[in-house]
Order: sequence, then structure tokens, then C-alpha cells
Amino acid sequence: MLPRGRPRALGAAALLLLLGLTLLLGPFLSGGDPERERREPGGPARAPGCARCLLTPRVPSDGQLRGEPSAGLGDHNRSACAPQPPLPPKCEVLHVAIVCAGHNSSRDVVTLMKSLLFYRKNPLHLHLVTDAVARSILGTLFHTWMVPSVLVSFYDAQELKPQISWIPNKHYSGLYGLMKLVLPLALPPSLARVIVLDTDVTFASDIAELWALFAHFSDKQVIGLVENQSDWYLGNLWKNHRPWPALGRGFNTGVILLRLDRLRQAGWEQMWKLTARRVLLTLPATSLADQDIFNAVIKEHPGLVRALPCVWNVQLSDHTLAEGCYSEASDLKVIHWNSPKKLRVKNKHADFFRNLYLTFLGYDGKLLRREIFGCPSQPLPGAEQLQQALAQLDEEDPCFEFRQQQLTVHRVHITFLPHEPPPPRPHDVTLVAQLSMDRLQMLEALCRHWPGPMSLALYLTDAEAQQFLHFVEASPVLSARQDVAYHVVYRDGSLYPVNQLRNVALAQALTPYVFLSDIDFLPAYSLYDYLRASIEQLELGSRRKAALVVPAFETLRYRFSFPSSKAELLDLLDTGTLYTFRYHEWPRGHAPTDYTRWREAQVPYRVQWAADYEPYVVVPRDCPRYDPRFVGFGWNKVAHIMELDAQEYELLVLPEAFTIHLPHAPSLDLSRFRSSSDYRACLRALKEEFHQDLSRSYGASALKYLTALQQPQSQARAP
Amino acid sequence: MLPRGRPRALGAAALLLLLGLTLLLGPFLSGGDPERERREPGGPARAPGCARCLLTPRVPSDGQLRGEPSAGLGDHNRSACAPQPPLPPKCEVLHVAIVCAGHNSSRDVVTLMKSLLFYRKNPLHLHLVTDAVARSILGTLFHTWMVPSVLVSFYDAQELKPQISWIPNKHYSGLYGLMKLVLPLALPPSLARVIVLDTDVTFASDIAELWALFAHFSDKQVIGLVENQSDWYLGNLWKNHRPWPALGRGFNTGVILLRLDRLRQAGWEQMWKLTARRVLLTLPATSLADQDIFNAVIKEHPGLVRALPCVWNVQLSDHTLAEGCYSEASDLKVIHWNSPKKLRVKNKHADFFRNLYLTFLGYDGKLLRREIFGCPSQPLPGAEQLQQALAQLDEEDPCFEFRQQQLTVHRVHITFLPHEPPPPRPHDVTLVAQLSMDRLQMLEALCRHWPGPMSLALYLTDAEAQQFLHFVEASPVLSARQDVAYHVVYRDGSLYPVNQLRNVALAQALTPYVFLSDIDFLPAYSLYDYLRASIEQLELGSRRKAALVVPAFETLRYRFSFPSSKAELLDLLDTGTLYTFRYHEWPRGHAPTDYTRWREAQVPYRVQWAADYEPYVVVPRDCPRYDPRFVGFGWNKVAHIMELDAQEYELLVLPEAFTIHLPHAPSLDLSRFRSSSDYRACLRALKEEFHQDLSRSYGASALKYLTALQQPQSQARAP
Repeated sequence: MLPRGRPRALGAAALLLLLGLTLLLGPFLSGGDPERERREPGGPARAPGCARCLLTPRVPSDGQLRGEPSAGLGDHNRSACAPQPPLPPKCEVLHVAIVCAGHNSSRDVVTLMKSLLFYRKNPLHLHLVTDAVARSILGTLFHTWMVPSVLVSFYDAQELKPQISWIPNKHYSGLYGLMKLVLPLALPPSLARVIVLDTDVTFASDIAELWALFAHFSDKQVIGLVENQSDWYLGNLWKNHRPWPALGRGFNTGVILLRLDRLRQAGWEQMWKLTARRVLLTLPATSLADQDIFNAVIKEHPGLVRALPCVWNVQLSDHTLAEGCYSEASDLKVIHWNSPKKLRVKNKHADFFRNLYLTFLGYDGKLLRREIFGCPSQPLPGAEQLQQALAQLDEEDPCFEFRQQQLTVHRVHITFLPHEPPPPRPHDVTLVAQLSMDRLQMLEALCRHWPGPMSLALYLTDAEAQQFLHFVEASPVLSARQDVAYHVVYRDGSLYPVNQLRNVALAQALTPYVFLSDIDFLPAYSLYDYLRASIEQLELGSRRKAALVVPAFETLRYRFSFPSSKAELLDLLDTGTLYTFRYHEWPRGHAPTDYTRWREAQVPYRVQWAADYEPYVVVPRDCPRYDPRFVGFGWNKVAHIMELDAQEYELLVLPEAFTIHLPHAPSLDLSRFRSSSDYRACLRALKEEFHQDLSRSYGASALKYLTALQQPQSQARAP
Repeated sequence: MLPRGRPRALGAAALLLLLGLTLLLGPFLSGGDPERERREPGGPARAPGCARCLLTPRVPSDGQLRGEPSAGLGDHNRSACAPQPPLPPKCEVLHVAIVCAGHNSSRDVVTLMKSLLFYRKNPLHLHLVTDAVARSILGTLFHTWMVPSVLVSFYDAQELKPQISWIPNKHYSGLYGLMKLVLPLALPPSLARVIVLDTDVTFASDIAELWALFAHFSDKQVIGLVENQSDWYLGNLWKNHRPWPALGRGFNTGVILLRLDRLRQAGWEQMWKLTARRVLLTLPATSLADQDIFNAVIKEHPGLVRALPCVWNVQLSDHTLAEGCYSEASDLKVIHWNSPKKLRVKNKHADFFRNLYLTFLGYDGKLLRREIFGCPSQPLPGAEQLQQALAQLDEEDPCFEFRQQQLTVHRVHITFLPHEPPPPRPHDVTLVAQLSMDRLQMLEALCRHWPGPMSLALYLTDAEAQQFLHFVEASPVLSARQDVAYHVVYRDGSLYPVNQLRNVALAQALTPYVFLSDIDFLPAYSLYDYLRASIEQLELGSRRKAALVVPAFETLRYRFSFPSSKAELLDLLDTGTLYTFRYHEWPRGHAPTDYTRWREAQVPYRVQWAADYEPYVVVPRDCPRYDPRFVGFGWNKVAHIMELDAQEYELLVLPEAFTIHLPHAPSLDLSRFRSSSDYRACLRALKEEFHQDLSRSYGASALKYLTALQQPQSQARAP
């Protein structure tokens, strides 16, 4: 690199500062402020934006236009401070478009959004161009996130594919990388301006300051971009590397300001397609997807681009020259992880950038559920009823905490990790269970015991979700499985919402049958095959409404040789190595399974419901949901089995099926149940309410449940 | 309240904006910029500060001076935006003083510091006036936090007490609340300016913007304060409430800008003491500590005060009028939780403020270990060697992760909860153990079994530390105990640093003896008394260097009736309800204890060290530390016992002592050990290195350990 030209740069700086002041004074002198006219009625005046030392952009120098390496990036820092244009009025809605496909990018979008929401002070409208996977993940996520003043619209990437699929492309983002080109067409015609973001950027400032830069656009400018901070387009990084045409180092498309209105007027679609076709006559596929094409168009029409200060897209690619941008700036605005190495990128200040990224990766997203002061926002669907229900809770009620927990809307991130749905098979069964961090070590064993699909709900903090991700990545057993769907339900409140978690996992099961298990059980190695055969044999699909009971056992040993057959299991039972489940503490929970009969049984046999029965069952996916009022420890499964019985499910015990509970320390919720009489009193109250609801739903036939409840032994130790 | 005067306020706004512009232009026209002269040599120019809509302060109106309620606070919002004075040069050190006493305030200071460090861009020098408890906690914390560009100085509150102890005071902060008055005297004479903060404030912006407000001070102004946002000083909140004298609503001292140089010159000490004495002739004790006195002085000398924009101290007290300050401001700068109800304060926007606070409460403090770009900072003690050692690690080494973990400096927050040190007793024993979140449920049982002092290291994230706090508060058993010291070691890295944790807990034990236990063991109910009696009887203190062995047993049952005597224990052993510890998996670990002999023993008996021996022992507090190279699972205790033996500790088994291991699921580290051959290979390598070090330290006498290691059975299954 050439030595940096300090004197020249300083001169330019002084000039720019004076120009900036004129801009600031302008409205006062002339009385005309274009931004002011766009203000919402009644919205208060907003002051000139933050005038920290913004690095003033320049259009590339002649030298750069000729492809010469230059001091360009270095110069940027030395430029003095340009005053910011006025911030948009505080209630103005800012529009953001993001293209997102697949499981991994969906996780990236969440982190990006956390950083954006942390600093934002304006209402936002997100325009998400997604494939089916991201649509489903982000749809659920934003629906349950319930962030005030954030509107989300989805656009189907599938429909846009024909527009761009003809372009040969070698970039790792695949076809989706090119979709930014068709946004003027895809987004609503009424939308005039939008900020377009890559999924791998992190905000370190208020996006309103970026939006404010639209005001810098001249009448002809339509695209705001930051110059590339690598020499890629200069073509001297690799031998035989022939980059697409660009002005100097070209521009990076990780952060784009688009004047959609002007682009449509200027015939953008026509324009980029013509350029792309022309370049493709002499050059091979695009290497950097949309970015190559944006740059080629800009090279032909330099008047379209407005260069943005480099702090708005600090690029941490390999060979980055970004240091020239930020080394003397104290305000970094947007970090762009545009190396395939992402967080592992080698960079002098990598730690600094990583810490900023990790801040949001682990940030508790529910803290972003905060109102924007003074901007009337459309209430979120259901939010008002929820607020009312919460406000009506009585803090003196011994069940206050339970009821509060039941009403809590947890953020849900379904299929947190890559997942391949199982091919449709008529008798297939998904194992359904839920867990928190302290049961993670069960997953490998479970995978060994159950070769079929699983749908698991994990109750985690945002930070724990990342630990979980690393845990799976580090495990060859877990990372080999694409048929295990992990759904993260984010922690909120002090009680474990066991039934809400079960319902999330159940709702995401994709096979016609589900095995409703618990995470501390290991099924017989043969269970998956055996269940599918049994379902077929019993013709469950066609006529019978049945719940297949999988008899439950337990071992009290840490190390224990898992029985490979019913015969082996019976031997272990006889030698006292195994017991029927909760034999010592609560035999009523499984007594109706009739273990004595099971020993000899050769064919499935029917058993009758009895009070406190809580077997592990296989049922059709459309079975009743779990009652979310039961949180923490106690009665959560009992109530579900009761409802199955009320709906006249046959209870059929399978003669060759078994599952074994492994020992673990009591959970915190269980300790609490044991030590608190309030807890037990509340559980009794909830049970009574459940019975009342059952009577209401099922009439006289539900009377037997009430009678069972009133038997003294059931009250004495339940559960 | 009177209707808000919109037209008048807007007029004032326009005027201020013009004035602000003049200020901005000033330096260009005159060439003189007072800030510029203070810049560090070579420091780059810093742009005019952020000019978001700062709420312009006014000195209270005449009406307010007469004590009339006014539209004052409302007015502040409507004032238009005053340009900020220039930010201090980016490498200028900003000085912050905080008075802090006790365990709870120390926790508050950490949260305050996290918010401050998150937004700061300048080097900081903290001046902490502390009692002995806070000195010890915060000293350790900042020492291990290793935040670049943060210098911390401590001042002994004890020494300052005589200056203020004569003032009668009813505020909950006690005497410490008054210490802010003596800061001009207590802080170094060379220190000219300081920002003084209460421990219950949260930053939402860069403190440099607050520091910049010093530039607004006139020549006579010495104290910058925000007006009170409650009617306390108007005296109309409660019947018979006679507040101290103040201008209007008075000022709040949660955030103060002090010109120490001018205060010293003006004879501040004299001034406030005279005023305080005079007021005390007619009025009772101060209700609001220092604040009453600051206000009384200001009432007499209004020229001393510079009113600051109210966003710099948004007060969430009861009856707060703060909404008038922030409702139309999008930028809140500092939140002040100045209600005794703290987070539970009822406030329309409580959720918003709570979320900001919770953000920092749960924020991973290690992410704040980030360099300030372009400011040369003094390297932290030890930081350079650490960097070098880390840089020299070989990523290909199978022990890379182990070595990295060993070199990790964890933040340590000792005595995280209130703690009363045990009175000095010559034979007293502290139980020492470590745990993470998944063993929290052991604490209550442990407290029931061990009535003596404990020193426990907890390996937690910042967010988990808060969960832990709530767990203790919710438990009557735990919150009744003041003799249990909880030391939080913050998580960093993927391996459990078991021996580092043990060393933290060990270093904080305050009795002459320690019982080195593990968290999943419950000691005999009588053990605490029995150990003290044994220590006395064996005259350990005076002559013998001994390790008393507490024989270890285990149960495989969840529920289990704990034996109340050795006789009962032996019965349970005979019926197979209890086993000697790890009888099935690893009998070598405890075989030298000689359980057969123990059954019959009436007096302590000596045993010999053997390979892989890892008993639970009682030793003097000054025993060797654990070797930190052993992280995760494996060999961590074996190495320690070997070192005790090398130092010729007698191993004495106590005939009536016992401790019992309770069942739990294997930890993640253990699962990893079992599944990874790399992990086992690395452990072998570490063991060999440990032996080499042992030979180096103890010479030929350490040869026996090497021989033991080379026995094949020891390699085959260790540990």
C-alpha cells in the first residue's frame, strides 16, 4: 500500500466539516427541511443525528477506477467528521429486507435481529424473503417473540427463483445470494425505500442513523453501498483470478440502501439483466452472487451509487483492509462477518468483534420485548388478552406463580439445527420428549436406542442454546442424525413448563404416530421397529382409537447393561437389578399396566384406566394436547392420560415393548415440590380445576375421575 | 400539574439550537477550543458529540424556588435539542467515583460497571470508596476481570467515617450515603474532575457524553446535578414531612459531576459542614443522606450548581415524575433505581427499564474484556505473560483444550451473598466444595448435614448467578445460614475447571482446618462436631502434619434414609443398601482406606498411600493447592492426595467419620471422558507431566509415584 496521505486528507476533512455545517444551518436559513415534511402528524421534532466522527465516504479515486491499489480506505479515517443528516422522526417505520434460507441462516437472522432491536428506537417492518424452512422457523419465532412495533412480512423465495436461476453462480450462498437483485420487483410497489441486510451482519448502533443516510442521496442516486475492504475486485489476490467489472475495489452488498421507487422508475430489472448477460459473454459465473452484478451495473452507471461511510459495513473477510476504516473511529456501526470462516476469521481485533457478536448471540431475546415510548403501536395478536389475563391474576393466590407461568408466551425456535423431515410412511413413529440443559448427556444414548425420527423440545436460555449447538456439533453420534428435530423453547419464569414443552414437540412431529416419552428413559433397542410393526398389525390407522402402552422399568445403577430382549429384562427384574418404574415410591402410577400379566403376555392386551395412571404411550399425532396449567413437577402426565381415557382411547399394552428409566439427581422442581406445602396445595387446586373442566367437556362420563380424585390415598401422595 | 407550555418551550428550543450552532462554529471562527488543548499528544480530533435530542436543563423557575409544583419537568422534554459539547478526546481517561459497602452493594456495582463498560469508549479510572467487605470482593473481581484500560483505586471508608459520623441520618444507605460529601478530600489532590455515581444506576449510553457536560460549567459552577423527579422536597407528599431546604424539587445526587479542583479552592469542606450544622439546629436527621446536605448547600449558594439534562438521571422512585423527562426522548442515558423497592417499583414503563437492567445483570462480563482501539493502554499485571502462554499453545496438541482451559483467568466474585465469617476457633473446620448449576439442589441437604462453616465455589454464567441468588432467597434453609460463603467463578471455556474451583473455595476458607469434600456427598450429621473433637484430641494444630480420612460410601437409591450412626451405616452396608464408594466401578480409589479395618476400628489408624488413592480428607487450611492442569473429569483429586503424601502428611482414618455419595446422572464432562479416546490420551499426557513435576519438586522420594503409574492396571482404567 502507498503511504497514507495525511495532509491531503485533513484538508478534505476541514472542507467537509464546513459543508456539513452549511447543511445543518440550511433548514434554518431556507426554512425547508425535506425530512421534516415526512414526519408523522404530531410527531415531535427530532434533533440532528449523532455527529460522532463518521467516516466520510468518497467515490473511488481515479487511481482506484484504474484498479490501482490506493490509500483509499486509509483516507477515510482521516477525514474529519461530517455532521449526520437528521434522524427520521421517531415513529417513522423503517423497512428492512433480508433474504434467508435454511436452518443455519435462520439462526443467523435471529442474532442479527437481536443486535438490530437492541439499538433501534423506531418501529420496524421486516421484509423476509425465505424458503419454506426459514418461513416456518422465523414465522414461529416472530409470532412467539411478540416484540412491539415490529411488523414482519414474508415473501416466497421459490416464486422469485425463475428471475435469477439462469445466472451461473459459485458463491456459497447459492441462488439465494442473488435474490437481492429482484427486491424492487418482489417488495410491495408502495414501498419506496428499504435497507437490505445480509444475514451475517451485526449492528452496533441504531439503524435509524443508517436510514438517515438516504437523505444524502442526490436525485440520481438509487443505491447506497460501502466500498469493499478487500482487494478482490482488483484481481491481484490470486493467480488467474478474473473478477467481474467494478469501480476500483467495488462495493460490498452486505448492507444496501435501496431507493426502490427510483429503481423501478429507472427500469432496474432491465438494467441489471442486460449488464449481467453482457458480462457473462466474456466472464465465467459470478463468484460473489448479487455483488458481482451490482458492481457491474455500477461500473456502467456510476451515477447510481451513493458511497456510504465504511463504518456501516466493517468487513471481516480474509485479507480485509477494514482496519483502515475503524482503527481511529470509536463508533463502529455494523460488523459484517463476510468470511467463510465467520467467527474464526484471523484478524488483529477479532476478539473485539467476536465479543460484540457473542453479546447478541447469548442475549436474552425476551428483554427486547419493549415498547417504543410515545409511538402508538398496533397491538400484537393476542397480546391484549394476555395482558388482561396477567393483570387479573391475584398475587395472593397460592397458585400465582403457576398461573403466571402458564400464561407466559415463550419464544420458540423450531428446528434449531438442520433437520431432514422423515419420508412419509404410514406407520412411522416419532419419539417426543422435552429436556433442559441438565439432561443433555442423555441425547447420545437416546440416539443409539431409537433409530427413528425424534421431536425434542429443549428449554434453554439463549446462551444455553449456543452451548447446545456446540454440544451437538462435537458429538459424532448426534451430528450424524438428520431426523432428530430440536425445538428450542426459551426460558422465562421459574417453573419448568413441562406440558407446554411437550406440546411444542408434539406439534412438530411429522409422522402419523408419536411415542410420548420422557428424556430420562431409554427404549428397548428394538422398540422403534416393533412399534411400527405393531401399528400396522393392529390396524390402528384405519379403525381403532388406541394408545399403545410401553411398559416402564427403572434401574438404580449408574452403569448397567441394557437388556437386549424381554427375556433378559425379566432376568434383571428377578435379580433386583431392574424394578418396575417407581416401584418403591409410587407404584400406582404404573400398576394398571399389570406387570404380572405382561411377563407372560404374547399378544397386546387391553387395560383399564385407574386413578393416577401415567404410562408411556404411542398415540396418533392428533391426540389431545397436554394441559399447560401443569407446570413444574406433578400431575402433568396423569392429566393427559385421563383425557385420553375420556376421549375413549383403548389402552393396549404391548407384550414386547419396554423402556427403562435411568437414575439422576432430583430436578430442582422436584426438590421444591417436596419442600413446599404451598406448592402441594396449589397442585391440589389445579387438579380440582382440571376435573371441573373435564366434567364440563365430557359430562357425566367424567364423573369417575372426580370420584377417583376424592379417594384419600390418591390425595395423600399424589403424584 | 399545570398544562405543559408547548409554544413557549418551542421558542426556547429554537433559540438554544441557534446558540448551539454558534458554539459549534465557535472554534472555527476563533480558533480557540478549550477541549482541544487538553488532548493527548497525537490524539486525533474528536467530532462534536452526539446531538440527539438532549433535554435541556434549566435552573428551577421562581415558582419552583418558592416550592410550588410546576410544569418544570414537563418543560424539559419540549425543549428542543441542544448540541452536545465536544466529546473528550478518545484516549482521555475519565474518572468515576463510587461509594460501596457490603455484599449486596458490591453486586450492584458489578451490574453498574457492566453497563458503563458496555457503552464506554474511553479509558476509565475508578475510585472506589469501600468498606473491608467490598474492598475484598471488588479487589478480587477487578483483578480477575482483566478489563483493558480500566484502572481501579480503592479508598478506605473506615478512615473517612470521622468526617461524617456526627451527622444524624435516617437513609437506608447509612453512613456510607454521606461519604460522597468528603470526596474532594479523599480523592487525590491532583484529580480535578470526577463523575460520582450511586451503585443503583444503570448506564444506557457512553459516559463520555456525560463527561462532556463539564464543558457546560460556567467558571463558578462546581457541581453538576439532575433535578429531582419527585415532590419529596416540596414537602407535600406526606403529612408532617419536613424536608431539608432545597431549590424547588432539589437535585438528586445519584449522578454527580464534581469539579474537585474548584471545590477544594472554594473551601467545600468548611462550606457543607457549616450548612449542615446550621440546618440541624432546626431540623431532624437527614432523610436522604448526602443529598439533603448537597441541596441545603445549593439552596444557600445557587451559583455552584450546573443543572444537567434529566435523561442523565431518570429516577424510578415511587411518585416519580420521570415520565415527564423521558416520554418523548428516545435517548435515555442513565436509569436510577432510587426506590427502596428497586426492580419491583410500580411504574408505567417498569418493564422497559427492568429489561435494560436485566440486560446487564445477566451480561457475560468477559465480553467486556475488549481493547479500546488506538489508545495505548498499560498492560494489566500478568496479562502479557498470559497472552504469550496462550499464543504458544499448539492447536494440534491433543491437550490443546485442556491447556487453554488451565490458562483461562476466570472472573471471581467471592462472597457473592451476605456472609458472616465464623468467629476464630482453634479447631474449627470449613467444608470446601465446588459445584455448577446442576447440583444446586444438593445445597439444602448439605446445610442440614453440616452445621458448620462452608466455602463453596460455584461455576456459573452471569445469568445463572442471578438464578442462584433467587434460589437461595427462596429457600428458608439456605437464607438462614450466614456461615456459608458462596464464591462465583464465571464460566469460560468448555471444560469444567474443577481444581481451579477447589482452589478458590480453599483460599477463601477462614478456619484453621478444611474438609475437602465434593458436592454430591452428604456427611454424617455428627461429622462437624466429631471432626473438631478429633482435631483437638489428635493435637493436629501443635505438632502433627496429618490428613484425616473421612471414609466414603455410596447409595444407588433416590430415596434413602440417612444412617444416624456408624452402626446404622454398617447395617445398611450389610443389606446392600449402601456400598463403599465406587465399589462397582473403581474400588482402587478408596481401597487403601481399608474398610474392613474401619468396621471394627475404635481409634484413628494410619494408612499408606497407594496408586490412585483419592479419599476425602480434613487438612490444615495451608495444605497444598490442587493442580489446575486437571480440568474436566479425571485425576484431579488423585494428584492432590499424591502431593499430600509427597509432603509427608500422615493419612489417618477416623473410625466414626463417614460421608455418603448420592446418585446423579453422569456429568457432561464424564460422558465426554467415556466417549473420547483423545480425552483419555490427553489425561495420560497430563498425568505424566504431573509426575515429572513431582519428581522435580520432591526428588527421589517421588519415584514411587512414577512406578505406581507404570503399573498396567493403573493405566488401564484410571481413574
